[in-house]
Amino acid sequence: MPVQHQTPDPFQQQIENCGKRLVNAVSSCISDRTHIHNWLDLLIGHTISEADFRIQALRFIDVLPSLTDDQSLAEHLQEYFSDLPLPGFAKWGLNHSDTPWATGIAAPTVRYTLRGLARRFMGGYKLHHAMNSISRLRHQNMNFTLDLLGEATISETESEAYQQQYLQLLDSLSEPVSNWSHNPLLDTCHNEELPRLNLSLKLSSLYSQIRCVAPQASIQAICKRLRPILRSAMKNNAFITIDMEQYEFKNIVLGCFQQIIMEEEFKSWPHIGLALQAYLKDTYKDIDHLINLLKERGTPVTIRLVRGAYWDYETVISKQNNWPCPVWQNKCDTDYNFEKCLYLLLNSQQTIHTAVASHNPRSIAVTMALVEKLKLKNDQFEFQMLYGMADDLKPALVTMGYRLRIYVPFGETLPGMAYLVRRLLENASGQSMIDSGFGVQKNLFNSQSFDAPIQTLKSLQLKSVKESTFKNSSLLRFITQQQCDEFSVNIKNVKDQLGKHFPLIINGKKHYTDHTIKSFNPASPSQIIGKVSSASHKNADDALKAAVQSFNAWKNTPVQKRADYLRRVAALLTKKRMEFAAWQIFEAGKHWQEADGDVCEAIDFLNYYAQQAEIISRGKSVGINGEYNHLNFKPRGVCLVISPWNFPLAILCGMLSASVVTGNTCIVKPSSLTPIIASKFMELWQEVGIPDGIINFLPGPGKVIGEYLARKPEINIIAFTGSLQTGLKLLSIGSHIQPGQYHIKKVIAEMGGKNAIIIDEDADLDEAVLGVVHSAFGFQGQKCSAASRVIVVSNIYNKFLKRLLESTQSLIIGPPEIPHNFIGPVIDQLSYDKIQQTIRHAQQTASIHNYEPISDINNGYFIKPCIFTEVDPLSPLAQEEIFGPVLSVIKADNFHQAIEIANNTRYALTGGVYSRQPSHLEYAQDNYNVGNLYLNRKTTGALVNRQPFGGHKMSGVGTKAGGADYLLQFMDAYCVTENTLRRGFAPEPEPDD
Amino acid sequence: MPVQHQTPDPFQQQIENCGKRLVNAVSSCISDRTHIHNWLDLLIGHTISEADFRIQALRFIDVLPSLTDDQSLAEHLQEYFSDLPLPGFAKWGLNHSDTPWATGIAAPTVRYTLRGLARRFMGGYKLHHAMNSISRLRHQNMNFTLDLLGEATISETESEAYQQQYLQLLDSLSEPVSNWSHNPLLDTCHNEELPRLNLSLKLSSLYSQIRCVAPQASIQAICKRLRPILRSAMKNNAFITIDMEQYEFKNIVLGCFQQIIMEEEFKSWPHIGLALQAYLKDTYKDIDHLINLLKERGTPVTIRLVRGAYWDYETVISKQNNWPCPVWQNKCDTDYNFEKCLYLLLNSQQTIHTAVASHNPRSIAVTMALVEKLKLKNDQFEFQMLYGMADDLKPALVTMGYRLRIYVPFGETLPGMAYLVRRLLENASGQSMIDSGFGVQKNLFNSQSFDAPIQTLKSLQLKSVKESTFKNSSLLRFITQQQCDEFSVNIKNVKDQLGKHFPLIINGKKHYTDHTIKSFNPASPSQIIGKVSSASHKNADDALKAAVQSFNAWKNTPVQKRADYLRRVAALLTKKRMEFAAWQIFEAGKHWQEADGDVCEAIDFLNYYAQQAEIISRGKSVGINGEYNHLNFKPRGVCLVISPWNFPLAILCGMLSASVVTGNTCIVKPSSLTPIIASKFMELWQEVGIPDGIINFLPGPGKVIGEYLARKPEINIIAFTGSLQTGLKLLSIGSHIQPGQYHIKKVIAEMGGKNAIIIDEDADLDEAVLGVVHSAFGFQGQKCSAASRVIVVSNIYNKFLKRLLESTQSLIIGPPEIPHNFIGPVIDQLSYDKIQQTIRHAQQTASIHNYEPISDINNGYFIKPCIFTEVDPLSPLAQEEIFGPVLSVIKADNFHQAIEIANNTRYALTGGVYSRQPSHLEYAQDNYNVGNLYLNRKTTGALVNRQPFGGHKMSGVGTKAGGADYLLQFMDAYCVTENTLRRGFAPEPEPDD
Repeated sequence: MPVQHQTPDPFQQQIENCGKRLVNAVSSCISDRTHIHNWLDLLIGHTISEADFRIQALRFIDVLPSLTDDQSLAEHLQEYFSDLPLPGFAKWGLNHSDTPWATGIAAPTVRYTLRGLARRFMGGYKLHHAMNSISRLRHQNMNFTLDLLGEATISETESEAYQQQYLQLLDSLSEPVSNWSHNPLLDTCHNEELPRLNLSLKLSSLYSQIRCVAPQASIQAICKRLRPILRSAMKNNAFITIDMEQYEFKNIVLGCFQQIIMEEEFKSWPHIGLALQAYLKDTYKDIDHLINLLKERGTPVTIRLVRGAYWDYETVISKQNNWPCPVWQNKCDTDYNFEKCLYLLLNSQQTIHTAVASHNPRSIAVTMALVEKLKLKNDQFEFQMLYGMADDLKPALVTMGYRLRIYVPFGETLPGMAYLVRRLLENASGQSMIDSGFGVQKNLFNSQSFDAPIQTLKSLQLKSVKESTFKNSSLLRFITQQQCDEFSVNIKNVKDQLGKHFPLIINGKKHYTDHTIKSFNPASPSQIIGKVSSASHKNADDALKAAVQSFNAWKNTPVQKRADYLRRVAALLTKKRMEFAAWQIFEAGKHWQEADGDVCEAIDFLNYYAQQAEIISRGKSVGINGEYNHLNFKPRGVCLVISPWNFPLAILCGMLSASVVTGNTCIVKPSSLTPIIASKFMELWQEVGIPDGIINFLPGPGKVIGEYLARKPEINIIAFTGSLQTGLKLLSIGSHIQPGQYHIKKVIAEMGGKNAIIIDEDADLDEAVLGVVHSAFGFQGQKCSAASRVIVVSNIYNKFLKRLLESTQSLIIGPPEIPHNFIGPVIDQLSYDKIQQTIRHAQQTASIHNYEPISDINNGYFIKPCIFTEVDPLSPLAQEEIFGPVLSVIKADNFHQAIEIANNTRYALTGGVYSRQPSHLEYAQDNYNVGNLYLNRKTTGALVNRQPFGGHKMSGVGTKAGGADYLLQFMDAYCVTENTLRRGFAPEPEPDD
Repeated sequence: MPVQHQTPDPFQQQIENCGKRLVNAVSSCISDRTHIHNWLDLLIGHTISEADFRIQALRFIDVLPSLTDDQSLAEHLQEYFSDLPLPGFAKWGLNHSDTPWATGIAAPTVRYTLRGLARRFMGGYKLHHAMNSISRLRHQNMNFTLDLLGEATISETESEAYQQQYLQLLDSLSEPVSNWSHNPLLDTCHNEELPRLNLSLKLSSLYSQIRCVAPQASIQAICKRLRPILRSAMKNNAFITIDMEQYEFKNIVLGCFQQIIMEEEFKSWPHIGLALQAYLKDTYKDIDHLINLLKERGTPVTIRLVRGAYWDYETVISKQNNWPCPVWQNKCDTDYNFEKCLYLLLNSQQTIHTAVASHNPRSIAVTMALVEKLKLKNDQFEFQMLYGMADDLKPALVTMGYRLRIYVPFGETLPGMAYLVRRLLENASGQSMIDSGFGVQKNLFNSQSFDAPIQTLKSLQLKSVKESTFKNSSLLRFITQQQCDEFSVNIKNVKDQLGKHFPLIINGKKHYTDHTIKSFNPASPSQIIGKVSSASHKNADDALKAAVQSFNAWKNTPVQKRADYLRRVAALLTKKRMEFAAWQIFEAGKHWQEADGDVCEAIDFLNYYAQQAEIISRGKSVGINGEYNHLNFKPRGVCLVISPWNFPLAILCGMLSASVVTGNTCIVKPSSLTPIIASKFMELWQEVGIPDGIINFLPGPGKVIGEYLARKPEINIIAFTGSLQTGLKLLSIGSHIQPGQYHIKKVIAEMGGKNAIIIDEDADLDEAVLGVVHSAFGFQGQKCSAASRVIVVSNIYNKFLKRLLESTQSLIIGPPEIPHNFIGPVIDQLSYDKIQQTIRHAQQTASIHNYEPISDINNGYFIKPCIFTEVDPLSPLAQEEIFGPVLSVIKADNFHQAIEIANNTRYALTGGVYSRQPSHLEYAQDNYNVGNLYLNRKTTGALVNRQPFGGHKMSGVGTKAGGADYLLQFMDAYCVTENTLRRGFAPEPEPDD
């Protein structure tokens, strides 16, 4: 960064003076106190400096709490570290850690060491430990705030328990702290009494069903659980700070805070605070907004200004989803923003109180200087630091007469440690390291310690494996009210358009027939979405004729032009994405985000196949002097596209656009359950001016239209996605040569699955339970990728099952039009009946959980997600595809047996594994027989290009959709060889890409 | 090249002195004579200096003779040059050259210009022109040698005509030249009378059926036609020089020369000579050998020492075939060798006479110096130069008193010009340019003109498009007697092994059954090649069980190890290549080179698939922060390989090795017509220790064993190559799901073809006729790639047909064991009967040519290649695959109609085009519906990697064999997605290849 020449800034000099005072105070304190640094600091210092070791060490610390037996711990230890260059002794230990005697030594040693590490950063795991810790702090003239650690709350049961724990905490601690003798430095704020009891609280833990897409409903649910806590705090004279969490929840947390502080009951209560993160680009504006609100309120609240602890996460998630990154990418910008916010806060001390939470010397010095400049008293603000960190700074601040509050997490050591580790991980990585307190202990200050941060506003380039030019379109993040509102408007608009009649399209002309197919809203069957004309054999003949006749011209249209049609449809679809999502909400029963995901996937197919077709059209050359060889691909002819209802836009679009861009002409037979969304999609092609005859649209009954066309000798490709039964029929039809047929039909069939997720004993249950719930019950389990079996290694079975049942029980059921609902209807009466029958039958052999009939929501086809246990892996329940919200839980003795059970079906589509044992993940990659294997994430939501999708065995025959080879199926390869040697003379071969 | 410091070499000084004399002589002569250089020199200079223009100009000159109408000439002109940066006027002319008036001007202008060019280098096109030319030379005190130009002789009719022309020439010219007045410089050699009449002769023109593989037979046939010419020369007092041709024919030309000069009749005749090429690495040795022979003979002959005019061709051909390059790669090495040979020749002047054929000043000066050093008289050697080239040097040499002979080509201007052009092309390209006489006229000498060439022995790296690590194994070139002899020994050895019994192989164990299949030699059906055990259903069940049971272990064997087995089999096969070829000669009726080609292809499949499997196993990654995606491939399971008899080793090997290397286990059912070669191949797998059960070998009747196994639910892949009928049956069987079948069978079926070659009106008939003959009748037309239709544009129809019939009539039929035979037997009685029946039926609607029954060769299944004309393109003859030596010739109005006719069958396998019109070649690439399109070469002989092979429509369903995607069919794709984000922390994505 270039050094900026400027006249000496008097305030900067004041900051540096404060810095000097801080340095002096630290120096005098260090000599006073016992030097508690030990080998742990060295180890941690090493951890942070070696990238490979850091990853493995932090991951090991992450998994450790789940390793209950010694053998497993020893295995993990070896698998995580044996490939790394380690000091000799450590290496020896590792190499022997799987022998029984070594296991007996290694495991307890590791646990003891890690407990030691945890104890340094946590105030204990029982209440009386916490009591000791905070008493000790009191003796050191420091305040505290307690944070209750635990697992993520992934069910309402857990959220309620979390609320109860806080209520208990308030009741139990109120009295002990009231007995402490008065300490003016600690107990006074703005000349008023400050509650001694101070708790920090995560709102996301109070409600397990937060959905960004439904901010108001989420806020109301959270506030409902928050109020009793606040009432108790008022009663017990406690102070409550609401922690800030991931950006995803920021507006909801802020919304809760803003609502609750304005409620009559709490309006004049000053003892409430909120943490805000300086690394967020939004924060300055948020503070400003809050100040205005507080002016109206009259009573101040406290803002804890932190830098923010989710920097890696926010950055990675944004990058993954192609979302704008909400955090500053350069640490200087965060530092700059921290000071800017600090200035705003301290300048508004009449309206808002400030807690400066930082271990950064410059931030502390700036605060000191600002306070002096603004002539604030020391009781008008406070410093905050984390328990166990920057321990050299703390006594110095106390000595200098500042109020310092220590953030003390407490709870069960090991599960709680996972949370602590998260903080360490975040701190250890990259830019925010200076705040961690590790590795810099020896040089707490340096010559730049008090330099002003310089704003860069640059974005950081993250390293990426292969930056392809293709980018997935980004899902709506629904993080702003504006986006939610806009979506609502689209829903309303579509609602106003229901009931129209859509035509067949043959050779570019619209045909309305008397015979129609009606489409209903599965959440409210009396609501007609629209109707489409239903094709006759005559219509089919005409469409086929049009497709055959337009083939030659289309084949000879340059690929760039064909690709351009796709790109233009993609652009239109992007523009109308909310409208198209809204149609799906009504016609397919998808909730907002599922509907949006389907539209995104359609856009991705269009853009990706356009790009791939151009790449493929370049062919491959092998040149040698005197001979030019070029392999290229030509369209096959006419493609019959038979598409399903569950991804009524994406899958239709994928098969159709692949076919079109490669130069084939098409006949589209959409599912009769979702013909309206297909019709709307056809309108886009017409809008971009696709030539007549290239895409012919023929809704109609599968048996009448689909099979009739599939038999026609003029059909070259059948692209089908749907049931196994229909797929096999089409394969059989396709293999039979008809009179006059001069080719062998290519049948691309993607069919069912009976997908499993395996839960290993070291799985991260916070993630595993949610992953299973989303995989099994997202869109009511009506995805071919949906999990319908979860196979759990016995050690963890009970623990997992309990949380799974609770989490499933918490899912909200209702019309998908209302964004707060997670579970919508199944697609139609037939499906509803079939699933109900499956549930009835299965109850005879397996135990059902969580089931109760639902009949009172608009006569919609709602089925409550249900879970079966004690399931025989070979029973129909565990072998046949159900395509509904029904999940079988199967117990396995060990991981290998779990894989065996998972493989033992006739399908091989998707599979999932939650495990943190490297050898198990590797074993799964080698032996889990599926088309798409997902490790430590849900099994649904494959993205174009990133996760080419499709299976084998009875799940499919095609190359993977959304993958580089998919288009090849729609083409014939041809190789041109030219002898370029003439009369002994050959030009030099042309260089090829 | 580094300057070498050395003491002054007195001989070099002498050379430089001679050089100075030469320079002086040239200077004084130049002022004497009219400067004939004109704009043509400038154009040609431009041609040579601009690479793009050079290629197009030389190609245009090449095609010009075939452009008989003005419209076509104008089109070519525009297509060849319109993309090049040309001067304004030329550009304008081109852009309008297709308008009728421009056509009327452009075509005659171009023809006139090119005729002018031709006339500069040719001594006229009629005998009296030649007479004028040589008389003029005589007046200029120069000798001549006449070379008769014409088309290539591709039939015995043409070869006989060539012989007759020479005989006529001798008779007609003898008298006129004898009337010339005596000129001692020109007419005396070693004090004896030198014949004035001097002809140069190409031996390859005397015999159209030369085959390297049968050198002795070729030599005898040539000598038979040569003797009458030599007798006439003796009678007419003429001198005959045998020209040297391509390296391919060198040993045959040399063999003829050595034989004929030792024959009693010609032994004491001195007036015969031979051209030898200094660019060949062999030549010094050849001269040495010849000197020894001549010592025995007693009478000297003359050696014309040239540099050699096929440098590009020899280099390209060697590179294409991975043969050692016979010519020196650096011009300095050729120059060095030229002087070395010259030294040897002039030193042996008692035994051998020398003609120094060069335009190179250094070579001339060296000769002058050597002659002085050796004290030779000027009548004891001569210089030779080409007509129309280096015209400044010629009078200088004459002035200096040297005998100079001019090589005068003569013949029909335009067809003859093609031959001249070949010389120009060769001279224009790269290194040998200095000899061309173009572009260097202005600076005939420079300071380096007389420097000694420095030997480098370096090989020149030719530019290649993409140097893949895979190299096709090289066909035997059969250029040495030793190689032919070695091959003969292998044939004999195999003959000694005929008649053995070969077993089934099930799970690594040999099984001999009572029921056997006997294999006969189709060229001699009473000869039993051997017998194999014939499998029962029980055997099939056992083999299937073995394949299923061994699958898991094989799947988990690392791909490198699997690939290693292939490479080891390839190494063994390479070692035993002649033995394996010999087996095919007996069992399949292939001639030597076809048999060798089949073995080479097998070796290529093994090495190529080994390499590709390793490449594929790396998979493809898409990484993004926090997520790792990897696409990879797994074997499917058990593969049933059903292989044909026509490539009994290569195709079996290709399908089997692809299956094995990808991790599948196999059951091989070979054709019952060639089970012995399959058995021999199995022995190689056993020799390299392929684990038991991976490859099970089950000969047996297709209906009994093939279909039985194809139906089994445990079969995952059926890899088939054979007839359409069987292929469709297997496709149908494959699509039917059997009870207990948990996957959809992958059927890879490569079937028939009805392949056409199109002859455009500007085709190079010399190449086109041979290309058609080889494509249609090679291995008796029993290749799926064989041409069975030739579609000829009407303008050229008669000319083409005449030569085609003559060429076909010249093919030699007989047992393939004897290398001179080109046409062997068809595979068996059934095939023989079917083909005969087809011929009989076809005669009712079409005209047959060249047909006569053959019955007297060992009762073998020989059918004489026959040609039908007046064939209805829609008749069974032109629509159904015959798989025998039967070719239909169809006339088309124009090129586009020819493509239409070619496409109008149900097959789409191979296709060929002979055309030199760029737009037609492009049109064919876009519209010729075949899997493998060959431009200006034969349609058979696809090479692994270079020409991935296979078709569509009814010709096949698979990806192309020998191509990069072929192996994917034997595998299922799977995508692994790992969420690498844990607790907000993600390692940086790993870089991928």
